[in-house]
Amino acid sequence: MLLRMSTLLLRTLREEPAEAEVPSHRLLLRAGYVRRAAPGGFTWLPLGKLVLDRVCDIIRDEMAAIGGQEVSFPALLPREPYEATNRWTDYGDDIFTLKDRRGSDYLLAPTHEEMFTLLVQDMTSSYRDFPLLLFQIQTKYRDEARPRAGLLRGREFLMKDAYSFSLTDESLAARYAEVRAAYQRTFARLGLDHTIVSAVSGAMGGSASEEFLAVSEVGEDTFVGCTVCAFAANTEAVVTPVPRVREKSHGPLTVHDTPGTPTIASLVDLANERALGGRTDWTAADTLKNVVVTVHHPGGEDELLVIGVPGDREVDLKRLDAALAPATATLFDDFTARPDLVKGYIGPQGIKARYLADPRVAPGTAWLTGANEPGKHAVNVVAGRDFTPDGTIEAAEVRAGDPCPACGDGSLTIRRGIEIAHIFQLGRRYTDVFGVEVLGVDGKPVRPTMGSYGVGVSRAVAAIAEQHHDERGLLWPDEVSPVDVHIVAAGKDGQVDAALRLGAALVEAGLRVLVDDRPNVSPGVKFTDAELIGVPRSVVVGRRLAEGYAEFRDRRTGTREEVSITDIPRVITAALG
Amino acid sequence: MLLRMSTLLLRTLREEPAEAEVPSHRLLLRAGYVRRAAPGGFTWLPLGKLVLDRVCDIIRDEMAAIGGQEVSFPALLPREPYEATNRWTDYGDDIFTLKDRRGSDYLLAPTHEEMFTLLVQDMTSSYRDFPLLLFQIQTKYRDEARPRAGLLRGREFLMKDAYSFSLTDESLAARYAEVRAAYQRTFARLGLDHTIVSAVSGAMGGSASEEFLAVSEVGEDTFVGCTVCAFAANTEAVVTPVPRVREKSHGPLTVHDTPGTPTIASLVDLANERALGGRTDWTAADTLKNVVVTVHHPGGEDELLVIGVPGDREVDLKRLDAALAPATATLFDDFTARPDLVKGYIGPQGIKARYLADPRVAPGTAWLTGANEPGKHAVNVVAGRDFTPDGTIEAAEVRAGDPCPACGDGSLTIRRGIEIAHIFQLGRRYTDVFGVEVLGVDGKPVRPTMGSYGVGVSRAVAAIAEQHHDERGLLWPDEVSPVDVHIVAAGKDGQVDAALRLGAALVEAGLRVLVDDRPNVSPGVKFTDAELIGVPRSVVVGRRLAEGYAEFRDRRTGTREEVSITDIPRVITAALG
Repeated sequence: MLLRMSTLLLRTLREEPAEAEVPSHRLLLRAGYVRRAAPGGFTWLPLGKLVLDRVCDIIRDEMAAIGGQEVSFPALLPREPYEATNRWTDYGDDIFTLKDRRGSDYLLAPTHEEMFTLLVQDMTSSYRDFPLLLFQIQTKYRDEARPRAGLLRGREFLMKDAYSFSLTDESLAARYAEVRAAYQRTFARLGLDHTIVSAVSGAMGGSASEEFLAVSEVGEDTFVGCTVCAFAANTEAVVTPVPRVREKSHGPLTVHDTPGTPTIASLVDLANERALGGRTDWTAADTLKNVVVTVHHPGGEDELLVIGVPGDREVDLKRLDAALAPATATLFDDFTARPDLVKGYIGPQGIKARYLADPRVAPGTAWLTGANEPGKHAVNVVAGRDFTPDGTIEAAEVRAGDPCPACGDGSLTIRRGIEIAHIFQLGRRYTDVFGVEVLGVDGKPVRPTMGSYGVGVSRAVAAIAEQHHDERGLLWPDEVSPVDVHIVAAGKDGQVDAALRLGAALVEAGLRVLVDDRPNVSPGVKFTDAELIGVPRSVVVGRRLAEGYAEFRDRRTGTREEVSITDIPRVITAALG
Repeated sequence: MLLRMSTLLLRTLREEPAEAEVPSHRLLLRAGYVRRAAPGGFTWLPLGKLVLDRVCDIIRDEMAAIGGQEVSFPALLPREPYEATNRWTDYGDDIFTLKDRRGSDYLLAPTHEEMFTLLVQDMTSSYRDFPLLLFQIQTKYRDEARPRAGLLRGREFLMKDAYSFSLTDESLAARYAEVRAAYQRTFARLGLDHTIVSAVSGAMGGSASEEFLAVSEVGEDTFVGCTVCAFAANTEAVVTPVPRVREKSHGPLTVHDTPGTPTIASLVDLANERALGGRTDWTAADTLKNVVVTVHHPGGEDELLVIGVPGDREVDLKRLDAALAPATATLFDDFTARPDLVKGYIGPQGIKARYLADPRVAPGTAWLTGANEPGKHAVNVVAGRDFTPDGTIEAAEVRAGDPCPACGDGSLTIRRGIEIAHIFQLGRRYTDVFGVEVLGVDGKPVRPTMGSYGVGVSRAVAAIAEQHHDERGLLWPDEVSPVDVHIVAAGKDGQVDAALRLGAALVEAGLRVLVDDRPNVSPGVKFTDAELIGVPRSVVVGRRLAEGYAEFRDRRTGTREEVSITDIPRVITAALG
């Protein structure tokens, strides 16, 4: 494949595009890989399509290597199968729905669990047909409330979804391990520095859930690691260790006037000043903050919920949503409608609302908290004595330095990452719904169990761009670079012809080549464009053409060497390994 | 690539599927290439996906050979660009539309003229950027009133749309010719027996329109050819030759009682019986039939229209729709609302409705037609004297034996075909709407002119299946067969192992191989499945394995020969050319 810049649909941008917030988005726009076409929808330009195709090929290759079979479902699907699994309702506004000309309900599928399950029901009958590993690479749709960051969070994007079907839990675990290993190989080939973290599985259901996160400051996911052990988890999946409460008899609950203390900081100051409960060492961690939220149950009624967390921590709305999924929550602010909830002075004792507490609010712990009257707080409010939560909830923020829930010895570090894959053992949720049964080895019917393995394909392109760029432009890993070599014709004394001849020779050697043969474009502009486009290896056919030499540049190592033009194919082939 | 039937997601069907009307649909279902997933939406199973990918590769290859550059647009697009070109309205119920969570209007794009035009406006600035040939292979959506015939007319399908952008009409004509030739090569490689016919370009606008029709009895398009010259056209595009009317003075218009003659046949009988106008040689062709239709203007009011055609011809509703596009028509039947239109006795003289006549109703021709009173007809109703149509319309059926409109000497033959491609010179309709201008060679702004070149990719797979099957199953052309060779292990004395070893050797030789290694399946079933699946070349590893022989079968020629197993790779490679 030989591409010529003189005819290529490419227009590099010198200016930073105002619409772009993150480096991958800025650079993919500036270097002419994508263009915005709709809110959350992008057009792949010729260079971008080449990169996307290479990413798809690597994914296919690694899936085929573990026996994955490729299929392709429609994206536009009738409501019924999604109604059967409740996902039509659970996804709420997050999916695009529409009516056809006859008024029947359809959706643009966010994922295809239902369809894979129905297909396997249709196509299999006996244990001989299992295990199965099926996948597709397909355009997906989600009506994101806030599409952002270019390809990182769009409303139309390319995804690979894969499902395994097994007859035993052992077989499911084995398939899961195979796909996990295949994904590690895939992301290594894509050049993605990634971490595998424990995760929650959201609206799709399931257990044994892990995410592959490409480490990146612009990632939307935060994840923790342990300073001592191998623990790694998405913050949404972090389980707070329950403190061991020493047996201790607390004094009786007492109520105190605490005027003008609507915030934790003002409360702690006043508590120490007045030595409430005889103490002057109050900290925010001794207080119990009660946050009121409205829970939106998809397809159902809204519900009021009060969440109790230690006063030194905020409620993390993403962790809260993960804990409530498929329901979502927003902060409640209509306190006039609930005079029993005294804003700034709420306490869990005698509260008339569903109340869930942080695991740190363990039975036997005592708290400084609101007294449910304006300007009053209570001391020695003991969990299990003065109030009993309706349950616990993982909604408090996770902080660097928190104790590791796995080993208990280390403390947590926090980093950000881009979710590039999510794998989990889905189990029989979908085969139960559709009553899938096949003949088992022993002649009895067996219900298959499923694994779910998604990769964000277009998002992976952006993640690669995030991890592989410098101040001058993109710098692709070899296996996903749009071409293997970028030849710059720098000069008007036959350099263009020579560059094209060299390009043809390299194509002959099996390479993908881009030649910058643009007339009337200065070498300086060509070099700048080459760096922006980010092919790791380039050849400059310039002044020393007359002597038979060109310059071979390796952008990654920064090396430049004069090489005899006849030697270039050998040098590049060697460099590509 | 080596596929094993023991693990392949494949279930062949012995029974004819009730839902399938045409051979391609029946066979693609029975042989396990596709499954129905939604009304007008199909899932590609592993074998089907392989064929589809090969078809795409051939299309890409031929587009790249003429300098086509591949891009990829979103399918979900905002209303505005389609509103600007009026297509949002023109397509009416034929497109899927939806609202996002904010209530904004979107559509699932039926084609992408607007987006290609806006992209070129964004990415180009001068004559140096032209000509351009861009394409994408993409899932498209149309809300067909009656999805039918499997992949032949779906609501979600794969299409390649391509557009050329030129600065001169000559350049457009040259691009058009290049794509036309590339499509001839493409369809030849796909094994599609096709005819290129003149066509109309429908809601997309444009001229110099041609369709590639795969000749097939199940095709929805009818097309004509001439017995003498090279003329070929879709019936919708046939232009009726206007008869040369000899100067002749007709007698005066006279009205006659013709009770009980609501049909042309009854009218002709009575006219001859009573020697109306002194003639007893009346035929249906002497009568003028006036058909009332309601025209539905997209986004506008309905309109009543009367169409006059010679009484020996029906109105062809497809030709009528093509003539009225983007409006559509249905037969009018509410005659009580229009007492001036006397059903069965309508004449064009003094009619109070828009009246369009067949070109045969030329000025100076005289007709036997209704007198606009119940039970009365008029004789010597002369076009241009007693009535003047508001215009002519091509709505009368085209019949085998009609004179050729091109040479005038030959007569027309009629065949059916499947539209697999449509190319036309679109012109400046879209660049006008968006005001696209670039700097011309002379320093003045120039407006690009476009060519439009679509291929029905998934439909092409069905068309290939229509043309390449026999009573035993599919029989793929070499270049699109899911694999190059199908090896059947027929026996339990090591045949399976030998077949797999042979398969591995063939893969080593660069071939795609399917091995039927299913245990507990009889040779008879395996042979039947192999014929149904339709790989043209197979190898049977059977009884003579012990002597080192296998049977090489060429399904197309019907030959079978015993070949030494070590010789099989050479024989197959030779057979594949």
